[in-house]
Amino acid sequence: MHRNLYPATAPKIVNVPVVIVMVGLPARGKSFISRKLARYLNWIGVSTKVFSLGDYRRRMLEGSQFDHSFFDPNNPNGMNIREECAKLVLADIVEWLKDKGKVAIFDATNSTRKRRETIIEKCQSYECRVMFLESVVDDPVIVKSNVMAVKISSPDYKGVQPEQACEDFLARIEHYEQAYEPLCMAKDRHVSYLKIINGGKQFVANKIEGYLESRIVYYMMNIHITPKAIYLTRHGESEYNLKGRIGGDSDLSHRGRLYGEKLAEFMAEQKLQDFRVWTSEFKRTIQTTEHIKGVSTEKWAALNEIDAGVCEGMTYEEIQENFPEDFAKRDEDKFHYRYRRGESYEDLVARLEPVIMELERQHNVLVVCHQAVGRCLLAYFLDKNYEELPYIKVPLHSVLKLTTEAYGCKIEQFDLHIPAVNTHRQKPEDVSVSRDSAHALQTVPAHE
Amino acid sequence: MHRNLYPATAPKIVNVPVVIVMVGLPARGKSFISRKLARYLNWIGVSTKVFSLGDYRRRMLEGSQFDHSFFDPNNPNGMNIREECAKLVLADIVEWLKDKGKVAIFDATNSTRKRRETIIEKCQSYECRVMFLESVVDDPVIVKSNVMAVKISSPDYKGVQPEQACEDFLARIEHYEQAYEPLCMAKDRHVSYLKIINGGKQFVANKIEGYLESRIVYYMMNIHITPKAIYLTRHGESEYNLKGRIGGDSDLSHRGRLYGEKLAEFMAEQKLQDFRVWTSEFKRTIQTTEHIKGVSTEKWAALNEIDAGVCEGMTYEEIQENFPEDFAKRDEDKFHYRYRRGESYEDLVARLEPVIMELERQHNVLVVCHQAVGRCLLAYFLDKNYEELPYIKVPLHSVLKLTTEAYGCKIEQFDLHIPAVNTHRQKPEDVSVSRDSAHALQTVPAHE
Repeated sequence: MHRNLYPATAPKIVNVPVVIVMVGLPARGKSFISRKLARYLNWIGVSTKVFSLGDYRRRMLEGSQFDHSFFDPNNPNGMNIREECAKLVLADIVEWLKDKGKVAIFDATNSTRKRRETIIEKCQSYECRVMFLESVVDDPVIVKSNVMAVKISSPDYKGVQPEQACEDFLARIEHYEQAYEPLCMAKDRHVSYLKIINGGKQFVANKIEGYLESRIVYYMMNIHITPKAIYLTRHGESEYNLKGRIGGDSDLSHRGRLYGEKLAEFMAEQKLQDFRVWTSEFKRTIQTTEHIKGVSTEKWAALNEIDAGVCEGMTYEEIQENFPEDFAKRDEDKFHYRYRRGESYEDLVARLEPVIMELERQHNVLVVCHQAVGRCLLAYFLDKNYEELPYIKVPLHSVLKLTTEAYGCKIEQFDLHIPAVNTHRQKPEDVSVSRDSAHALQTVPAHE
Repeated sequence: MHRNLYPATAPKIVNVPVVIVMVGLPARGKSFISRKLARYLNWIGVSTKVFSLGDYRRRMLEGSQFDHSFFDPNNPNGMNIREECAKLVLADIVEWLKDKGKVAIFDATNSTRKRRETIIEKCQSYECRVMFLESVVDDPVIVKSNVMAVKISSPDYKGVQPEQACEDFLARIEHYEQAYEPLCMAKDRHVSYLKIINGGKQFVANKIEGYLESRIVYYMMNIHITPKAIYLTRHGESEYNLKGRIGGDSDLSHRGRLYGEKLAEFMAEQKLQDFRVWTSEFKRTIQTTEHIKGVSTEKWAALNEIDAGVCEGMTYEEIQENFPEDFAKRDEDKFHYRYRRGESYEDLVARLEPVIMELERQHNVLVVCHQAVGRCLLAYFLDKNYEELPYIKVPLHSVLKLTTEAYGCKIEQFDLHIPAVNTHRQKPEDVSVSRDSAHALQTVPAHE
């Protein structure tokens, strides 16, 4: 009789496979949006994959040069090849959705109505729903900076000087502009689409019908495409950490308090114009931030550590003693295991979704949280799957700085050099219910 | 260490109060949207109230006649009064948000940019965020049918013949049209708004920044404004029902099976062109639908009965015997009480949110569910608060038909005349932990 469906993950709701089709001129952030959206959907438990036409083209003509003339609508050779690639992509998309995929993202310009109609036809014949996601950027400064940031380092310009690559790419864009037919409220009335204007300042949505589609709109409205930094740390070492006890609401240890001081110094050194501090509701995260002055601090219940239910406050040895079967079950599938009267990592992901949405909208936030919570947040930013997630290392007394990069997140780790216990328990070799205590406790880190 | 924050409810996320300001000509469904949105927000735990300018106007000039000339922009008296009312509404909104309100919905035409700027200024001075929700309907047939459905029965037309009322109201709309300045992507670039076109066929969103605002967009994209029917029933009487046991996954009783037959007959009599059947994953709901042939049936984990955790399969007597304190705590605050290792009604609401979203998009669905699940769903449709919710009566062997009405839902109950046990346990008088068994068991319905 377990709750096995959480609203935020709700993978079973994707009854019909969905194809998200990107639309837009080159250098409008389509690949960025595709990858980011895929990362999000996978994180909430909807199996998603990006299919990039450019990759197919490069694979088909390996070693070829792709100067702008290839993309000239008057070049029949280039047109044929791109047509051919589009077919291959669609065939692979259909395969993926027949197999285990729920969502496929077709990353290409798809800039003509004819192309889009072909896609709709094909998808409908396989009973997939189609939603177009168009990115429109009308500011030439932003377009040029996109070109410089991403396009000149594309495999298409291997060995080409940046200035020359940029010039060529702008010529490529011009070719596309000749044939570009943006999605239009009059002509595309019967098509499901979301138009994202200037990186999310405005949106136009038409015929958004499925649950998943409306969730995607919701996500797109929450993300900024501008760079940002998020600082993530666990609370300082706590009394319970010293004793090897999980959960609870204990105070910081002496070393934990020293870390709080160091953390305030570290943040001051970052010389941020302004930043926000988010803690959980537990004493150990609040105490960790008490030396940071003059900034707004918010307590989030959603950031509270995973609820270990009946195991709250126990050591791993005690859990093994009292609930050996549960302990083994958790090792077997740590992501889905739900503590008796408590939570699973899967529950945590659902609980943290609003935090992610809010982080996406913020600049410069310091999140002071807990081991399991940190893992879930990092899994989102670093695109880790559910098997990796519960084993991501989030050591005490380190700050992780996450910065938006071209197609993902850069992570930097700052060890603030205050000693602390290790709390990372690796997956033991033996996860069977029949294992003995020695095997169950094999990877428990040392404690008092 | 309890999870006290669920993503779907997340009331704590509304850190800053929000004023939703409706915009649009008369008869564009603004009041419908306002009330529906308020119902949804309250259901997910965000305290929301609608402030309708029309009510203030009628209260201020009680007994007056409001023919169209009152709304003529060249009638200074009418203009002054409406201006005055707008001020009163805003003052009350500020009061409500200072008190316990999180969201206020200002239901009025707010059709000029000047009026909207005044509202923005006022709200900003109280540190409230403002979001405009504009409803645009450009089909005169729909507008006229709105007028006939709702407006001619408005208190403004007490004692007036329908035809005359309709004519007058259309003249009123014309007055507004003179001065109407729709929200505009160029001129209102700095304003947060959502434009809903033709009841949700298209949307334009600008500067949607807060978490709550993006959730509202998400909800608006999920609702149809067209009428629909939802049929809601519990499974037939189960073996456990006979024994007075809660939860579990038992088979239907003999009478429960008879109900399944009757239900199929009942649905056939409805002569629906097509309809869908949704069940939970439990045998008793699936068995209930087995006589309904030729329609698509889906199993939803989200529709599973409330997880009673350690109390699964117990009678109320056994719960009182084993967990008397829990039993009392549950009676004290049934909505928030979470069964040990199980769920609370509050959890259920969060889990059912995707079901509601999906129901909003469907026509003609038969939902075969459980007592607690049925209560949560009914609370949404019938606008019941969290204290009423866990005591809503959802008897066995009855079908509840919900139909969209002007400003809410009509409910019809069809008793299919198969006897069944009563499973409704009323709130006992004594909910104190110190009560004795007799008092605790006072309202337990009879069973084997």
